[in-house]
Amino acid sequence: MTCSIARTVSIVGDAWTLLLLREVFLRSRRFEDFQAHTGMSPHLLSVRLSKLVSHGILDRVVYQKRPLRYEYRPTAKGLELYPIVLALTYWGDRWTSGRKGPPTRLVHKTCGRPMYAVPTCSECGERIRPQEVRAEIGDALATERASMRARLKGPVS
Amino acid sequence: MTCSIARTVSIVGDAWTLLLLREVFLRSRRFEDFQAHTGMSPHLLSVRLSKLVSHGILDRVVYQKRPLRYEYRPTAKGLELYPIVLALTYWGDRWTSGRKGPPTRLVHKTCGRPMYAVPTCSECGERIRPQEVRAEIGDALATERASMRARLKGPVS
Repeated sequence: MTCSIARTVSIVGDAWTLLLLREVFLRSRRFEDFQAHTGMSPHLLSVRLSKLVSHGILDRVVYQKRPLRYEYRPTAKGLELYPIVLALTYWGDRWTSGRKGPPTRLVHKTCGRPMYAVPTCSECGERIRPQEVRAEIGDALATERASMRARLKGPVS
Repeated sequence: MTCSIARTVSIVGDAWTLLLLREVFLRSRRFEDFQAHTGMSPHLLSVRLSKLVSHGILDRVVYQKRPLRYEYRPTAKGLELYPIVLALTYWGDRWTSGRKGPPTRLVHKTCGRPMYAVPTCSECGERIRPQEVRAEIGDALATERASMRARLKGPVS
């Protein structure tokens, strides 16, 4: 897969993993906490934790020796998934909260105010709107997409 | 479910739907284009398109009468999913691209430069870092989480 979104999705793009990431950013670190707050079965949870560890998103660290206990801490690579969690939160708050308002308040400690995340341009700092972005598909991805289209139309005789 | 992330994830948090959203923001509008560029089967694709239509994320619009043909256009609610797509792109570009660099360039038409999305605080405009955010869990969600923890520990005798 050449597409960055497809690659990201293949690593974190399932419902349980996204909930697990939420928990990581709510400062959960232990198996029992992940299990309790997501409702995942132990098996489902271990498979997902192992995958995140194998991709270098979480580190598995001993926090107690007798009996041996591990916790899961986000790496630098894992912490950079935060914009995804912020974006999921924003949309859910805005479009699914109903009358009661958002279930959680995110307070920006730097300025002390409740906030939501606004995606801005790394270059000019302006808010990014979909109409104002042009995606320039590179050669490798363009070739892959053309061959997917060709495959759909059937073999050329 | 009280959590905004869980709600968002239940609507768009599966791999195929996230790929479908990518296509929407690459300006694909038609069934055949979605199918070709994602590799989804027609059945999987129709189920997901219908779900997005039923949640008011896509509008199904006639674009040709003879024969009857539809296209799928993002609503205002759908366009606001863009930050999720931007965040998936950023992480994939940064952590999975390898030597060749990102497969697609996003150009911000407003300033004319290739860019990536930076999540900033809606209040003070500063870049948001996970360490600088405090999540204040509201009463409804706190109760739900406590009862999930209690359930895990088994019935109280």
